[in-house]
Amino acid sequence: MSKPSNARGTRDFGPLQMSKRKYVFNIIQKHFEEFGFQCIETPAIENLSVLTGKYGEEGDQLLFKILNSGDFLKDIQASDLEKGFKKITFDISEKGLRYDLTVPFARFVSMNRNDLVFPFKRYQMQPVWRADKPQKGRYREFYQCDADIVGSTSLINEAELISLFQSIFKSLNLKVNLLINSRKILTGIVDKLNKLELFTPFAVILDKLDKIGWEKVSNELLEAGFSQTDCNSIKDLIEFKGDNLAKLNKLKSFYGSNEIGLEGLNEIETTLKFVETNGFKNQNILFDFTLARGLSYYTGLIYEGKADEGSFTSSIAGGGRYDNLTAAFGMPNMSGVGISFGIERIIDVLDDLNKFPEISSSASKILLTYFDEAGQIESLKYVNQFRKAGISAEVYSELGKIKKSFEFADKKQIPFVGVIGDTEIASQKIMIKDMKKGEQNLLSFDEFIDQLD
Amino acid sequence: MSKPSNARGTRDFGPLQMSKRKYVFNIIQKHFEEFGFQCIETPAIENLSVLTGKYGEEGDQLLFKILNSGDFLKDIQASDLEKGFKKITFDISEKGLRYDLTVPFARFVSMNRNDLVFPFKRYQMQPVWRADKPQKGRYREFYQCDADIVGSTSLINEAELISLFQSIFKSLNLKVNLLINSRKILTGIVDKLNKLELFTPFAVILDKLDKIGWEKVSNELLEAGFSQTDCNSIKDLIEFKGDNLAKLNKLKSFYGSNEIGLEGLNEIETTLKFVETNGFKNQNILFDFTLARGLSYYTGLIYEGKADEGSFTSSIAGGGRYDNLTAAFGMPNMSGVGISFGIERIIDVLDDLNKFPEISSSASKILLTYFDEAGQIESLKYVNQFRKAGISAEVYSELGKIKKSFEFADKKQIPFVGVIGDTEIASQKIMIKDMKKGEQNLLSFDEFIDQLD
Repeated sequence: MSKPSNARGTRDFGPLQMSKRKYVFNIIQKHFEEFGFQCIETPAIENLSVLTGKYGEEGDQLLFKILNSGDFLKDIQASDLEKGFKKITFDISEKGLRYDLTVPFARFVSMNRNDLVFPFKRYQMQPVWRADKPQKGRYREFYQCDADIVGSTSLINEAELISLFQSIFKSLNLKVNLLINSRKILTGIVDKLNKLELFTPFAVILDKLDKIGWEKVSNELLEAGFSQTDCNSIKDLIEFKGDNLAKLNKLKSFYGSNEIGLEGLNEIETTLKFVETNGFKNQNILFDFTLARGLSYYTGLIYEGKADEGSFTSSIAGGGRYDNLTAAFGMPNMSGVGISFGIERIIDVLDDLNKFPEISSSASKILLTYFDEAGQIESLKYVNQFRKAGISAEVYSELGKIKKSFEFADKKQIPFVGVIGDTEIASQKIMIKDMKKGEQNLLSFDEFIDQLD
Repeated sequence: MSKPSNARGTRDFGPLQMSKRKYVFNIIQKHFEEFGFQCIETPAIENLSVLTGKYGEEGDQLLFKILNSGDFLKDIQASDLEKGFKKITFDISEKGLRYDLTVPFARFVSMNRNDLVFPFKRYQMQPVWRADKPQKGRYREFYQCDADIVGSTSLINEAELISLFQSIFKSLNLKVNLLINSRKILTGIVDKLNKLELFTPFAVILDKLDKIGWEKVSNELLEAGFSQTDCNSIKDLIEFKGDNLAKLNKLKSFYGSNEIGLEGLNEIETTLKFVETNGFKNQNILFDFTLARGLSYYTGLIYEGKADEGSFTSSIAGGGRYDNLTAAFGMPNMSGVGISFGIERIIDVLDDLNKFPEISSSASKILLTYFDEAGQIESLKYVNQFRKAGISAEVYSELGKIKKSFEFADKKQIPFVGVIGDTEIASQKIMIKDMKKGEQNLLSFDEFIDQLD
């Protein structure tokens, strides 16, 4: 007899939490489908050959690996132990748990390339697993919600994903900002400074501006090989304040005739124009050319959503364009653009801000209770009628425990209790108590239904 | 560059399969909630201490075990290898993947006993993992859909679960039979024969009647310790043909005053009466006292659903009453009753019988396409209008590729294509092609919407 517990970093979701989760999932799913995205699901278990090498060395360490079934030691010699755990891992484990939805999606596209209709718009809402150190807000098992469009380079797709972002947070009644940038804007800056070879360190260092400030960023840039003059130019750009248009103009004059930089600016302008045409105001879309985003596979527009209320500063959505996601699976030149909603964080933010609508965890609208066997039989008849009318209903399971059944309904937040005794059977009515108002009325089935609307 | 594949026994679900799956999941979920069941979710990863020892020795072997993160070898000596893989497993792995939904549910109930309102009615629809040999219809990752009621011994619960079964398959338009029995019926038989100590072998052997026939069953019974007279009595019962009432009477006269047997008969009778009261006809509910069901934790009524059309003979749902499910987690005497729907098999059966309604995998109702930039802008305006009206819509992403966009809509089974050119912009209308009928009409937004209803 063991005292049970959850595995570290994992959670159970009880009825109330599930109601909240479903509220958010349903809104996101509704908009995904409204925008023409099709649902796919991939398995939790993937071959390690699919997963490893896709998330960097740190990611490889964070993959949950599954022990081979049967005698996994049969080809292992005592001397093999000296190889160390990293090498031996692949001798005793060939499968792992999904680490994100992007790599399995790339595998799916590559494997089904002949059957899919491109541009292919898919969404996916499934859990992923990471052997991270658990801490507040960081779990080892959590859901991701991704929408991607692959097989088209049109900026309409970027605009659609941004409109999708706007729709979803409007429905969730959460104020958000969307920072946007383009990898080409960043490339344009280093290209203009004749330091194209320093693009990667530039992006990585710039990404830290928020956290470590300009002083440290400039030191790191100097160490990485930028000159003091370069740093001055970059500082001049970074310190510039203004709205999107002013920022775009500032960069335009900086770039002069630099092609890649101008291409980046054009991406931003066109996308913003499309989003506005799509019916969304752009006030909360902030062009921020210090946004770099960690993932190395982005090649074009990138964006990151943050809550604009409450104290949450971390990202609640993000994404961008990538050109070579499926190349690792033997399918080069498949450009795509995606957005990922940080559903766990969104739920935390909504909870913190008390932004959930009044959600009841109770599945039932009415509980039927009774004094004796005749009432029990009558209750069973009614419960079926309620369900046929689309009203969730349940019968209290014990005879003659009226008081207990009311307590039960109260604790479960069931809004109505119907009592069925001899009078009710004789009159073909139900004594219905509105648990919120505390009122009680003798109503026929139809009268009650009418009153509900 | 690896040629990617799915891990053995796992599957991807593309848009069409997902539409079919969602159709079945949604129907089951709708009825679960109609009957007052509340949704919970438990994590995929559980501590092995929760999982092992709950599914028998074979089950323990079929658990997917997760390699500890970090240096899992640090406490392993070369000499440990001699212990063999079974023992070493627990040195290098402390977590595993959920094998079913029942054990995690029992853990959940036990851990949350002070917060839950009993009787607690929960449903759960999540994947489970088993390291079984994959074969047709048997996967290593598959969904289970369970509904359970714990904390009440009333037979109303059994009746509600059977009514739930009837409702779900009625909605799925699938003819099914439900075999029911009670463990007490079986106990009564061995008790009457004064062989109570042989209950377990009796149940196990009887369970094989379908597969191996009476001859072999009777040999096994003799070997297990039953006398020839016992076998004759059992044969007399088994060979008896008749409807439920006749069978109940046959057993009644066999039992005489045997208490446990009569209790079992009473369970069947009362439950069937409740189900009829609940509004469901009992014609497809077949009392079958050879039904034993493998799982040893059942103590009362047991039932098993089978399709009554097509060539599928295997079980598509099953369940029963258990009295001690949470005892393994330190919470004795918590009686419960449950039903599990074999969703993967249900999907296979519906597919095989062509019983899915016309399901389109396309998320979009209409695709908008255009010749030039003016049309593109207009399309982006319209697409937002459609979505606001609750109609899934998408914009073709390329300029001036009218023919390609029609092919795209055709392949994706999008039912309408709207073309927007200069005439359309001038008249504020859309040239809408009904892809099924092949008709084309110039319609205003409102005219099209009206026509859709």
